[in-house]
Amino acid sequence: MNNIEKLQKQIDFIAEVDKLKNVLRYTSPIGMERKENSAEHSWHVVMAAMILLEYANEEVNLLKVVKMLAIHDIVEIDVGDTFHFHKSEKPDLYLQELAAAERIFGLLDSSQKEEYLALWKEFESRETIEAQYAIAIDRIIAFIINSRNKGGTWAKHNITVQLALEKNSHIEEGSRMLWEMAQILVNETYAKGYISQT
Amino acid sequence: MNNIEKLQKQIDFIAEVDKLKNVLRYTSPIGMERKENSAEHSWHVVMAAMILLEYANEEVNLLKVVKMLAIHDIVEIDVGDTFHFHKSEKPDLYLQELAAAERIFGLLDSSQKEEYLALWKEFESRETIEAQYAIAIDRIIAFIINSRNKGGTWAKHNITVQLALEKNSHIEEGSRMLWEMAQILVNETYAKGYISQT
Repeated sequence: MNNIEKLQKQIDFIAEVDKLKNVLRYTSPIGMERKENSAEHSWHVVMAAMILLEYANEEVNLLKVVKMLAIHDIVEIDVGDTFHFHKSEKPDLYLQELAAAERIFGLLDSSQKEEYLALWKEFESRETIEAQYAIAIDRIIAFIINSRNKGGTWAKHNITVQLALEKNSHIEEGSRMLWEMAQILVNETYAKGYISQT
Repeated sequence: MNNIEKLQKQIDFIAEVDKLKNVLRYTSPIGMERKENSAEHSWHVVMAAMILLEYANEEVNLLKVVKMLAIHDIVEIDVGDTFHFHKSEKPDLYLQELAAAERIFGLLDSSQKEEYLALWKEFESRETIEAQYAIAIDRIIAFIINSRNKGGTWAKHNITVQLALEKNSHIEEGSRMLWEMAQILVNETYAKGYISQT
């Protein structure tokens, strides 16, 4: 494969992932009616990972975190977005998402395919310090947006303070400080009357 | 300032930049009717910078490039998006954007404000190898999308092959290979009859 052919495949990949702009999430951006899409969400978590780096429990490789977050939702092009609180209702979700990752990263040549597939799996496995911090960021964003959106998806889907904390306690694996902030934000939302305690 | 106060300011910043999801660009995502917003565009260029890194003319610091691209359009929260081919009609644009950068990064504490303001200025100045590569990426994305969107903004705004190349020749400063690809893509779009030559 010459250089132009390789580049052509990479451009096909960049054009393919453009479709993430068409995958709608449950969340709305702050103060907006429309649902946000997974591409703009992915940008927002990349920004947050940069800005909040000092709160990672361990010293993480930020470039690796950013790569993980930029690609973490790409599988939704094939599988769609799943509401965080519904994930346990979809036992096959991981295998569906893995097949999507194989297909989409498979548009790249084998060395880039392997790199990005490994990063996607690492994020999903939540075992490394980078994955733990990246996931803490992905989750704290929901707290930031919901707390400024009159309870946002929590209010709309009857998620209580207790459930929001129970289903997001892994924030603490990546960042004790962000976990503390998550509790402040959800309790503020309760105090304003947008969600219930239990 | 204690830690929680600093974190609160960072969260205010992350909530403020959420507004970038509401800034519409001239471009539509591939095959979609709606305009894309600057947040999802910013994600797309971060992805492209990761995938196309090998084509940078020099060995660049990818983390720095990604930070620049993640923030490069944030000033549009105050100033709005300007069509690439209209920039010369707005002589005050840089000063307006600089004021926006000062305001928005000013939500952070001084050390983060200075870091991100410097990155924004570095991108705009187009002098370092990271800025030159980041700008090449920001521009090549327009070629990828327009060439797959029946000419996209080129066709809609009567941009000829000649003008598209003339106003984007700085791609070559960051990547000779991407400049070669830009010419292929715009000429393919001409060959399909979507835009004219001169």
